[in-house]
Amino acid sequence: MKYGIVIFPSKRVQDFANSYRKRYDSHYALIPPHITLKSAFEADESEIDKIVKELQQIAAKTDVIPLKITKFSSFYPVNNVIYLKVEPNEALQQLREKLYSGIFTDHPEYAFVPHITIGRDLSDGEYFDVYGQLKMQTVRFEETADRFHLLYQLEDGAWTVYETFHLRKD
Amino acid sequence: MKYGIVIFPSKRVQDFANSYRKRYDSHYALIPPHITLKSAFEADESEIDKIVKELQQIAAKTDVIPLKITKFSSFYPVNNVIYLKVEPNEALQQLREKLYSGIFTDHPEYAFVPHITIGRDLSDGEYFDVYGQLKMQTVRFEETADRFHLLYQLEDGAWTVYETFHLRKD
Repeated sequence: MKYGIVIFPSKRVQDFANSYRKRYDSHYALIPPHITLKSAFEADESEIDKIVKELQQIAAKTDVIPLKITKFSSFYPVNNVIYLKVEPNEALQQLREKLYSGIFTDHPEYAFVPHITIGRDLSDGEYFDVYGQLKMQTVRFEETADRFHLLYQLEDGAWTVYETFHLRKD
Repeated sequence: MKYGIVIFPSKRVQDFANSYRKRYDSHYALIPPHITLKSAFEADESEIDKIVKELQQIAAKTDVIPLKITKFSSFYPVNNVIYLKVEPNEALQQLREKLYSGIFTDHPEYAFVPHITIGRDLSDGEYFDVYGQLKMQTVRFEETADRFHLLYQLEDGAWTVYETFHLRKD
């Protein structure tokens, strides 16, 4: 089974993201707007209890995380993904590292660029048109993430939440 | 904000349900296959901590729940919804009642018919055609639900999981 770990931003941010994803993101139907902490990884159903325990321990030792969403950006020319930029910070980076160490032996495919995807699989024409408009827009959301979620992927590519993990509050 | 409470059946059942939902359920993109325990209700963000605490207490006092999925059925002629029937049982019924009592002052709109919707908003022609084929099919899934989820609804109708609640294991 394939699992993944994400943060869902606030409803406000998700509503904002979905107003674009609906039109531009081919994954719109598969998962709500999210920040990926650990991308899809294979795990046996027999391993999942151990993974859940590990995630509980990680969450219990991790403070809630500030999220600043500051602009539209893109991975062009690597690919045509357009995203909402989440400003990197030490807390986010450290949580990410914990999810790729200890019992987690897989390695990240990319350097960590925290983001919320709002467009993908766009033709070059579409990409330049849409991104040209969006990059001029002012974006400013500040909030705190107090939880993350472990999800699993269905055969059609959709994701279902398996469990919630609460970060430490002061 | 609108909240709802559901059980997600196993991946196996969700895969089976989604193979139909993809074609026949207009809510396919909004939420994974699910059994609704408490349909959409309004709650203030300020009330949600209290609701979460109540749900934790309910979950801690509720044993894991057997789920038997036995056939395709439908709500016709009330509406054209086609669903996978989940056999009613005392455990499911009691959990449902707890979610409509105590601090929850709203009343259920319908009698409780546990089900997983796989088709809706079908024309009469489509409905008779699809249901005519499906009702002949043998369906048999038996499993145990060990958790339920509190979700909230985004402006576009999509649902995001807020929190997971674990039922009591022996």
